[in-house]
Amino acid sequence: MSMDVLQEKIRQKKNPTVAGLDPKLDYIPQYLRDEAFAKYGKTLKGAAEAYRLFCFGLIDALYEVVPAVKPQSAYFEVLGSAGIEALEAVVAYAKEKGLYVIMDAKRGDIGTTCEAYAEAYLGGIQVEDEFIAPFDCDSVTVNGYLGTDGIKPFTALCKKNDKSIFLLVKTSNPSSKELQDLITGGRLVHTAMADLAVRLTDKEQLVGKSGWSAVGAVVGATHPDDLKNLREKYPSIFFLVPGYGAQGGKAKDVQYAFDKFGHGAIVNSSRGIMCAWKKTEDETGRNYQEAAKAEAIRMRDDICRFVTIL
Amino acid sequence: MSMDVLQEKIRQKKNPTVAGLDPKLDYIPQYLRDEAFAKYGKTLKGAAEAYRLFCFGLIDALYEVVPAVKPQSAYFEVLGSAGIEALEAVVAYAKEKGLYVIMDAKRGDIGTTCEAYAEAYLGGIQVEDEFIAPFDCDSVTVNGYLGTDGIKPFTALCKKNDKSIFLLVKTSNPSSKELQDLITGGRLVHTAMADLAVRLTDKEQLVGKSGWSAVGAVVGATHPDDLKNLREKYPSIFFLVPGYGAQGGKAKDVQYAFDKFGHGAIVNSSRGIMCAWKKTEDETGRNYQEAAKAEAIRMRDDICRFVTIL
Repeated sequence: MSMDVLQEKIRQKKNPTVAGLDPKLDYIPQYLRDEAFAKYGKTLKGAAEAYRLFCFGLIDALYEVVPAVKPQSAYFEVLGSAGIEALEAVVAYAKEKGLYVIMDAKRGDIGTTCEAYAEAYLGGIQVEDEFIAPFDCDSVTVNGYLGTDGIKPFTALCKKNDKSIFLLVKTSNPSSKELQDLITGGRLVHTAMADLAVRLTDKEQLVGKSGWSAVGAVVGATHPDDLKNLREKYPSIFFLVPGYGAQGGKAKDVQYAFDKFGHGAIVNSSRGIMCAWKKTEDETGRNYQEAAKAEAIRMRDDICRFVTIL
Repeated sequence: MSMDVLQEKIRQKKNPTVAGLDPKLDYIPQYLRDEAFAKYGKTLKGAAEAYRLFCFGLIDALYEVVPAVKPQSAYFEVLGSAGIEALEAVVAYAKEKGLYVIMDAKRGDIGTTCEAYAEAYLGGIQVEDEFIAPFDCDSVTVNGYLGTDGIKPFTALCKKNDKSIFLLVKTSNPSSKELQDLITGGRLVHTAMADLAVRLTDKEQLVGKSGWSAVGAVVGATHPDDLKNLREKYPSIFFLVPGYGAQGGKAKDVQYAFDKFGHGAIVNSSRGIMCAWKKTEDETGRNYQEAAKAEAIRMRDDICRFVTIL
């Protein structure tokens, strides 16, 4: 099963972190932007080419260090179809380099609409006699506010195409408490959400040989107590942990996401890695790849002070 | 304010309905598919061209009858960048025809990521010295599970660019009860969500001259009791009402979404209108435009048996 594959990639690289690909023009060294704009002008297509060049460069720099990348759809969507074309290229390139690709799209809808989202990211579409997959990612993040109707089309493809999802359970932002921490019948709303993950796991037999369900959960590094409680309560749910670094989550906080074997979680860093070059002396950013790789290694080592992956 | 514009378009056409544009190849008459595939082959681009032709034809047939259209992003996303190119064209064409465009994308995230989503659908992006808007819709649907951090970037653009949003409050699907109807501190989770809409409305002064907030709510036609309660409790929140027709919502149910002036709500139909040609005798679908228009008029008249728009 797909979550076994992710766990195995983590184990092989001894690195439980994922590099977020959240490109913005501000993050991209000027020389790369100039190269892109020279080709396509100061247009959405030019900006998309800058994103593509930057993400390809990051993948080249990181693929031997990190087991996974997490492209953030929003940044590509703001460039319209040109952005999505770049996103398609980035996903394909990351897969080519052997990386596990988690599309951070936070999708959720009902019925046939939700099927379309699931097919978009974890499957494909029948065009008359041809079956075509636009992205074919390994995993996608899902917002389950609509209930299991909005999750099942994804789990159906987890089963059919051997994929995984990460359901938003407890997000890293301060206002996540407004809905997610409301108390209902003795449990928190976000544990009600995690309970849906468990129910679907059991019903659809989604646990792989390593014991992890194909339905994972997003739990923010900024809430170490929640991480600890959730880890204990949900031993088969793999965690995707955002919020390390820029948002304030520390290595000692994220350790609670892991089980005693150092398994069951992957910690994300986006800006920390992408913008590492801005903290160096080279203002041109021509060293952005080395800077990203150095930061990815520093982050891995930082977390592995607290977590030993068996 | 933008919600005033929507209310005024409804009043002018005496029609409180919105046509959902949720294209699938199955819904598109064969002759249109053939035309598209002849141009671009049986590819994602060919399928996207079929979607574009079909949606343009629907817009031509409907723009004098309905005040608004609601393209459903999922169906375009499954065609990758080719689909998004078609979606850009559909949004632009609908706006050209004077329709209010609600992008049904159910987006939600935090911080700069959420800003990117808001900019994608309600704004645009600065590419060096050029400001470019990929879609520039009038409105977008938003999933607020992440809390106000995930809504504020949208309301900021509602204010700045005179736009509106529809927050998912109580969706039309059966399993919406799993999360949305949990009871927390004497209120339902979905009223906690509606309360966030009110709080943001007050804080950011988002009520227009007609009394409607720029933050609307999605409330399903399949829950008439909830519609009634929510209409009473939230007099300044405009409702987008899915679930009429195929999902089982009736005209007598949706009447509760409106205030005593017949204002404050818009009812969606997607398949009912798009696939109306399938219920006629002409199996070629060459009459899909007349069939769609006739169904849109039937739906309007059906609802207006119960609702009089002053």
